Amino acid sequence: MSKQHILEPQDHRPHEECGIVGVFAPNENVATMAYFALFAMQHRGQDAAGIAVSNGFSIRMHKDVGLVSQVFDADNLQPLQGHYAIGHTRYSTTGSPNLHNAQPFLLDTLHGPIAVAHNGNLVNSAALRQELLERGVGLSSTTDSEVIAMMLAGARGSSWNERIRSVMKKWVGAYSLVILTRTGVYVVRDPWGFRPLNVGLLPGGGHAAASESCALQTLGCLAIREVKPGEIVALSDSALTVQQALPPKSRQAACTFEFIYFSRPDSYFNGKNIHLVRQQLGQQLAEESPVEADVVIPVPDSAIPGAIGYAARSGIPYNDGLVVNRYIGRTFIQPTESLRHQDVGLKFIALPANIRDRRVVVVDDSIVRGTTTEQLIRLLREAGAREVHMRITCPPIRHPCYMGVDMGTYEELLAHHMDEEEMRAHIGADSLAFLSLPGMMAAIGDTTGYCNACFTGRYPLSLPPDYVKSNFEARKIEDD
Amino acid sequence: MSKQHILEPQDHRPHEECGIVGVFAPNENVATMAYFALFAMQHRGQDAAGIAVSNGFSIRMHKDVGLVSQVFDADNLQPLQGHYAIGHTRYSTTGSPNLHNAQPFLLDTLHGPIAVAHNGNLVNSAALRQELLERGVGLSSTTDSEVIAMMLAGARGSSWNERIRSVMKKWVGAYSLVILTRTGVYVVRDPWGFRPLNVGLLPGGGHAAASESCALQTLGCLAIREVKPGEIVALSDSALTVQQALPPKSRQAACTFEFIYFSRPDSYFNGKNIHLVRQQLGQQLAEESPVEADVVIPVPDSAIPGAIGYAARSGIPYNDGLVVNRYIGRTFIQPTESLRHQDVGLKFIALPANIRDRRVVVVDDSIVRGTTTEQLIRLLREAGAREVHMRITCPPIRHPCYMGVDMGTYEELLAHHMDEEEMRAHIGADSLAFLSLPGMMAAIGDTTGYCNACFTGRYPLSLPPDYVKSNFEARKIEDD
Amino acid sequence: MSKQHILEPQDHRPHEECGIVGVFAPNENVATMAYFALFAMQHRGQDAAGIAVSNGFSIRMHKDVGLVSQVFDADNLQPLQGHYAIGHTRYSTTGSPNLHNAQPFLLDTLHGPIAVAHNGNLVNSAALRQELLERGVGLSSTTDSEVIAMMLAGARGSSWNERIRSVMKKWVGAYSLVILTRTGVYVVRDPWGFRPLNVGLLPGGGHAAASESCALQTLGCLAIREVKPGEIVALSDSALTVQQALPPKSRQAACTFEFIYFSRPDSYFNGKNIHLVRQQLGQQLAEESPVEADVVIPVPDSAIPGAIGYAARSGIPYNDGLVVNRYIGRTFIQPTESLRHQDVGLKFIALPANIRDRRVVVVDDSIVRGTTTEQLIRLLREAGAREVHMRITCPPIRHPCYMGVDMGTYEELLAHHMDEEEMRAHIGADSLAFLSLPGMMAAIGDTTGYCNACFTGRYPLSLPPDYVKSNFEARKIEDD
Amino acid sequence: MSKQHILEPQDHRPHEECGIVGVFAPNENVATMAYFALFAMQHRGQDAAGIAVSNGFSIRMHKDVGLVSQVFDADNLQPLQGHYAIGHTRYSTTGSPNLHNAQPFLLDTLHGPIAVAHNGNLVNSAALRQELLERGVGLSSTTDSEVIAMMLAGARGSSWNERIRSVMKKWVGAYSLVILTRTGVYVVRDPWGFRPLNVGLLPGGGHAAASESCALQTLGCLAIREVKPGEIVALSDSALTVQQALPPKSRQAACTFEFIYFSRPDSYFNGKNIHLVRQQLGQQLAEESPVEADVVIPVPDSAIPGAIGYAARSGIPYNDGLVVNRYIGRTFIQPTESLRHQDVGLKFIALPANIRDRRVVVVDDSIVRGTTTEQLIRLLREAGAREVHMRITCPPIRHPCYMGVDMGTYEELLAHHMDEEEMRAHIGADSLAFLSLPGMMAAIGDTTGYCNACFTGRYPLSLPPDYVKSNFEARKIEDD
Repeated sequence: MSKQHILEPQDHRPHEECGIVGVFAPNENVATMAYFALFAMQHRGQDAAGIAVSNGFSIRMHKDVGLVSQVFDADNLQPLQGHYAIGHTRYSTTGSPNLHNAQPFLLDTLHGPIAVAHNGNLVNSAALRQELLERGVGLSSTTDSEVIAMMLAGARGSSWNERIRSVMKKWVGAYSLVILTRTGVYVVRDPWGFRPLNVGLLPGGGHAAASESCALQTLGCLAIREVKPGEIVALSDSALTVQQALPPKSRQAACTFEFIYFSRPDSYFNGKNIHLVRQQLGQQLAEESPVEADVVIPVPDSAIPGAIGYAARSGIPYNDGLVVNRYIGRTFIQPTESLRHQDVGLKFIALPANIRDRRVVVVDDSIVRGTTTEQLIRLLREAGAREVHMRITCPPIRHPCYMGVDMGTYEELLAHHMDEEEMRAHIGADSLAFLSLPGMMAAIGDTTGYCNACFTGRYPLSLPPDYVKSNFEARKIEDD
Repeated sequence: MSKQHILEPQDHRPHEECGIVGVFAPNENVATMAYFALFAMQHRGQDAAGIAVSNGFSIRMHKDVGLVSQVFDADNLQPLQGHYAIGHTRYSTTGSPNLHNAQPFLLDTLHGPIAVAHNGNLVNSAALRQELLERGVGLSSTTDSEVIAMMLAGARGSSWNERIRSVMKKWVGAYSLVILTRTGVYVVRDPWGFRPLNVGLLPGGGHAAASESCALQTLGCLAIREVKPGEIVALSDSALTVQQALPPKSRQAACTFEFIYFSRPDSYFNGKNIHLVRQQLGQQLAEESPVEADVVIPVPDSAIPGAIGYAARSGIPYNDGLVVNRYIGRTFIQPTESLRHQDVGLKFIALPANIRDRRVVVVDDSIVRGTTTEQLIRLLREAGAREVHMRITCPPIRHPCYMGVDMGTYEELLAHHMDEEEMRAHIGADSLAFLSLPGMMAAIGDTTGYCNACFTGRYPLSLPPDYVKSNFEARKIEDD
Repeated sequence: MSKQHILEPQDHRPHEECGIVGVFAPNENVATMAYFALFAMQHRGQDAAGIAVSNGFSIRMHKDVGLVSQVFDADNLQPLQGHYAIGHTRYSTTGSPNLHNAQPFLLDTLHGPIAVAHNGNLVNSAALRQELLERGVGLSSTTDSEVIAMMLAGARGSSWNERIRSVMKKWVGAYSLVILTRTGVYVVRDPWGFRPLNVGLLPGGGHAAASESCALQTLGCLAIREVKPGEIVALSDSALTVQQALPPKSRQAACTFEFIYFSRPDSYFNGKNIHLVRQQLGQQLAEESPVEADVVIPVPDSAIPGAIGYAARSGIPYNDGLVVNRYIGRTFIQPTESLRHQDVGLKFIALPANIRDRRVVVVDDSIVRGTTTEQLIRLLREAGAREVHMRITCPPIRHPCYMGVDMGTYEELLAHHMDEEEMRAHIGADSLAFLSLPGMMAAIGDTTGYCNACFTGRYPLSLPPDYVKSNFEARKIEDD
Repeated sequence: MSKQHILEPQDHRPHEECGIVGVFAPNENVATMAYFALFAMQHRGQDAAGIAVSNGFSIRMHKDVGLVSQVFDADNLQPLQGHYAIGHTRYSTTGSPNLHNAQPFLLDTLHGPIAVAHNGNLVNSAALRQELLERGVGLSSTTDSEVIAMMLAGARGSSWNERIRSVMKKWVGAYSLVILTRTGVYVVRDPWGFRPLNVGLLPGGGHAAASESCALQTLGCLAIREVKPGEIVALSDSALTVQQALPPKSRQAACTFEFIYFSRPDSYFNGKNIHLVRQQLGQQLAEESPVEADVVIPVPDSAIPGAIGYAARSGIPYNDGLVVNRYIGRTFIQPTESLRHQDVGLKFIALPANIRDRRVVVVDDSIVRGTTTEQLIRLLREAGAREVHMRITCPPIRHPCYMGVDMGTYEELLAHHMDEEEMRAHIGADSLAFLSLPGMMAAIGDTTGYCNACFTGRYPLSLPPDYVKSNFEARKIEDD
């Protein structure tokens, strides 16, 4: 498969790495709840999914590559009986989807079986891995999640809370975790607060935790709050047990990209509604970079609220100009020579009726490699657009992310190689404007507490020397 | 599978039955072209797909249940070598998808092999079928398409044009057809012009025909025109051969629902762009049924242009209020009791930030059974909407369609049982308004030439007595 | 797949084309009975299987490529409810297994739906096919079975018995048929009696018919008799209705190869037990072609009884010398250069302990192309055999079969090109002997009434001129 | 699937647990060689298969549930490039086949990646596992193989030879191992010599190791010798490096069941050919337990040589009396009430022609639970046998095996509960005789050096207290 031509533009967006969920419900079988929570967070990762359930004595797990609805059916959910569960949906950063790296990761330990699901990235995992190997431990995957689980297996302490806390101190980087033991679900967030994590009260008793609040709303949760940076929250019988395991970092680092692209529009992050922030990003962009034009169109779906905001503030009419072919999925059929130029055109359909002879403002949420943007602009021009003005609802992405997002490497990032005028010429727009960093923060409504390293290169923690290289070295074991 | 609970609301929309394509290209392998044309018309039917190709001597075919991208891969497209092809994508009207009724339908005849793909419905097919049986012919399916193919096998005449014309005279109802012979592709449209059918000039030589113009644009066609009612168009070497086989009916009957819901927004039908007509339907609706409100939201995706039009004309701001979970596909997992009420909520996500304490105008394109509308309104109220005003961009659907669309039966159609006030109360809206028939025609821009039987009950041809029953009788053979 | 190297020796044996079954049981669901009967006749065809069932009103069918146990599961058997059933298991003569040619063949006719399953081959099918086409009938496959079904659809007569009889008169060749109607199962055998066909009384009421008696024993049948040549047997409520529709041919033509290779050892054919006849063939061969040797070994599995007979009569000890790798199935992995010579060795394992330095008599049941025999002899010599004496339990096969068996073409048949001494040299044996025709008939115990055309070239019916060519002409439609 | 009725008699035979292979070939890609070697040992385990290959730098692996020919295809073998490989084919002792416990087991360690494949069973694995857990190591499966691999990961020493030797000392029980490192394949056999293990010289250079010699013959090996108890053999560039890592136990314990049932007839074990030993077992049995009878028949396939030996020695004619339905595979279709009694009859077919009114000696190789034997005897009596005399080519199995064979538990073993006369009555035979222990050893040709614990209860090593229970305790993690 890998050698075949893939029609779906692959470079259009940054990729989130995971969604996680944890559930304890004393009166219900929780596997189905975990399933629907993962289903609601499918946008966070489409490559693999898994659920582990404890019945109070043993842990059973099912995981596989594919969408949540493909991985699970009534037959394989049925054996997952119990009141404690965690789940994971995964975006595969390295090549083809691979069952071996799917999560949760399940281990038997001296203190009983545990399962771990992880969203994020430890920047010191190479060192932690080496420590484990030197302790005489063998590792069966190349994931942080196994490193985390194996460190938990070897952790000291008289309770899981203590053991989790003792190894948390060694973890540097982004980690939103759910940990399943025989009789508990532990929910852990790093002290920087990189990735989202929420906990909610279930209507039928018990609690649930999830990367995004939308998953908790799907479960009908009555009250939802964020897990605070550095907290361990234990989902247990009567009430939540919350421990501030590590002090929150003075420089908090919530990922702004959750607002710009990742989170589902109905989710809340840092107390703010995603869709609303996206509209405000569009409004702010209209303030900063106005243009005389006839119509504002979004690059669907994620830029729709930004375009609505831009149109409302600018007074330029909003309309559709590009429609997504919903059925495209991935096709591996190679177009013949005569159809070759149609790649983007198979996913995005231009609407000449709304574009022809117009001056068009196109609102998008990011430019990563620029290939798709270039093709879209050509598509719009072929459909008769007189002028095309690109407006991006965030600053240029100039640096890779090491906190759990696949932004691409320095080599791949267009804004690492070009200034804005060069980019404009490269993509073929009449004008190109990015939202400014202060403007973006103003639209979000906070001024500090966020990680903007992909825009600024100022990472909120110190990276190990030669960090980038570590991605490529010593990939010693491979499995399919 | 059939007994399982299906989460995706099944009753929301009328169902189109098919998309068809025909290609002749003297310099290219046409199977791939047929593939991408079907791909572009996937919205017309997701249950089965097939392509038949002639190499000038024999016809090869591959068809199966599933999406176009699931049915075909490089291995099964490769043997389909030749310069003549037809293809079909199918919506299955009767129960579960069934390979046996998939199209094209391939037969060997006295005059060589033929393959047939059909979009539409013959209202006299029971009588035609009986004629064939009485002639001692056995039939292996219950489809019109086999009746059509078998009549062609027995037709008299010295050329395919003659033979096609001789049996066309007997067909009553909707038929847009592509017929593949060893050395030709024949494109046929009924004299009422019910369903769309277009033909275009390929950039590399030869011609293609397709239900929708968007498929021809995907193939890069240079000039596109509609096949006129009653025409047989032969795709052949140098130029198109067009024969007015039957005189067009004085009362033309193009399906208005192609504008309202079926066709892809970038397609043209009867010379008009679909997206533009949909905006005008929304504008007209704002004229006819204004309401004081704070926000206009569409039911995505198909009602977006209508909502944009309504907002523009009314001056009420347009915004998203409902978001579609793109990954829903179909899930067959039964929600537990506590999640049961979430059915619609799993597909449609309300955005409280844009709705709470607002008076909301919801624009949709049709109400069939009303179940989904009722659930959506409840979803919006739970998200805090102060008022919910439903606006529908067509008149109430009160009658079944017998021309190839699955609108539902009289029993199922809400508007057959209730007047508008009863419907409003039933779905729980604060107000409900449908676009008037004259208003709809004004927005389309014509006053005559259309079939509006589903609104008016005035069918453009006389139905056989007891027509409805014939759907249920004599389903004597079943296959899976 | 077709281009890959297939390790399983493909040329070793003639191929039977089908097994058929028919069941009527007033007190039971018959689909499961048909399933187990097909299961017992899996050796007659491994490429596709199908079952059609009537509930007295409509006929439902399921068929697919694969083994019986692969084609059917509880989910697809369950809907096949009713008291009347037919089934078919198929060996695919033409290239890769193809669902389109799978049986039963199901048609709706003027007299209600019918399904047909067929074992045999009509030598005048090209003419019959042409007649149908000239009557204006289209045909969707290239099988005799469709020709048969379509002729039944157009047959005259006031009952199925009459209609079947009227078309039987036109059929020339081998046909053992089961025909399912709404309320009956008709069992038909050609007047030559080429292929086996039996009928039995079910213990719980009703009757069953099957190609081989072993399938009826699997169903627990209490009394079993052969369907006589030219008979139509109707399985109905109380008793069998037997009609001598056509007079049996004066020159009966039961296929001797059922004794030699096709039938299961516990079946009976023409009143004789297969295993017993095979032992007698071996004994007769020992009489005719003795040799001084140390051990008699069979080519497993089918030649085991022949070798037991040879050993018993000759006094030479019987032992294993070749063992079959039961798990071989088919592998499509290409052996590397160094493993290439191992092809036969992967399926057949020589036992040096029983062979080394011995003079070995190898008993096999036929030589078709000779490739496998040659490889086996080399294998035995590499295992240390001092002498290898091939003994074949039938005469040389010099002519193709046109009565439903894939013996290979003249080009492929080794004995068409070589005399016995040339064959001996070609396969590398120290001696080679075939059973004589009179010896074979003596072992069977009859002197007349059999078709031995593959040995003698004297076909029991006159073939159409240019018969061989007709296999290749007019293969106008192809499906996968 | 687990709840469905399985027709194939499951209790008939003891189950071997695995076949292993290791290959080093400096001039060839070894994955295909490992594939064909596993293919030749498919009879040792049909539940899962896997191959791991080193290219000198990294190790790649593919494993899955299913037969070797199902698990591997050209696509997944292709990426397994390199000159070092190990492979495994597995019989799953615990419930349904489970990918999680499939082998090889692959780990990254301080000294680079290793993969391990294991045939056998460590009786002290619970204690070793506990030691690992107490060292803070987490374990992801319940297999010995992971315990072995993880101990290797933590082993001390400056070379793999040293490290392997240091942990070998702690292993108590049966282990034939292949260990793959970046640049070596290590072949290890326990000092008791329980399970077979051979090494051979490849014709193209390099060496291979395999559980059975037949696999090495498939690879064309020129010289084959057994790996001696306690040896570590390193397959390396020029010559084998053999280290006597542990002194062989004074009381050697080769498994006699390899002769009786497990090994393929063309393999050699302890220098003796399997098929020949089986014939001698039958001859010895005829000496010990003669009976007046008319025919000797085997229970196919494994008892065929025993029956040939019994017949030759006793002078009673050998013949087939039971035939195996080769296509049975597994069927999950539930027979209806009227077919229920047919279970065994679907797999084994009696041949009345050879049995009716005869006094029949039935030779089988073992009785475990007795269910199948009872059904077979009833089958033979229904086919008309006048007397049925069971003769078993080994003593009664009275004790479970703890050295890697699934003989069943004390509860399941018929001979644990009954004496021979009770067994005879239970299975319904006219007489029943087992080969004596001294007779069996005489037929094998040795008097000492074997493990006969399943017959005698005298285990060649001391079992941990409460050993049996340890199979059931602490199955804390489960995966599917």
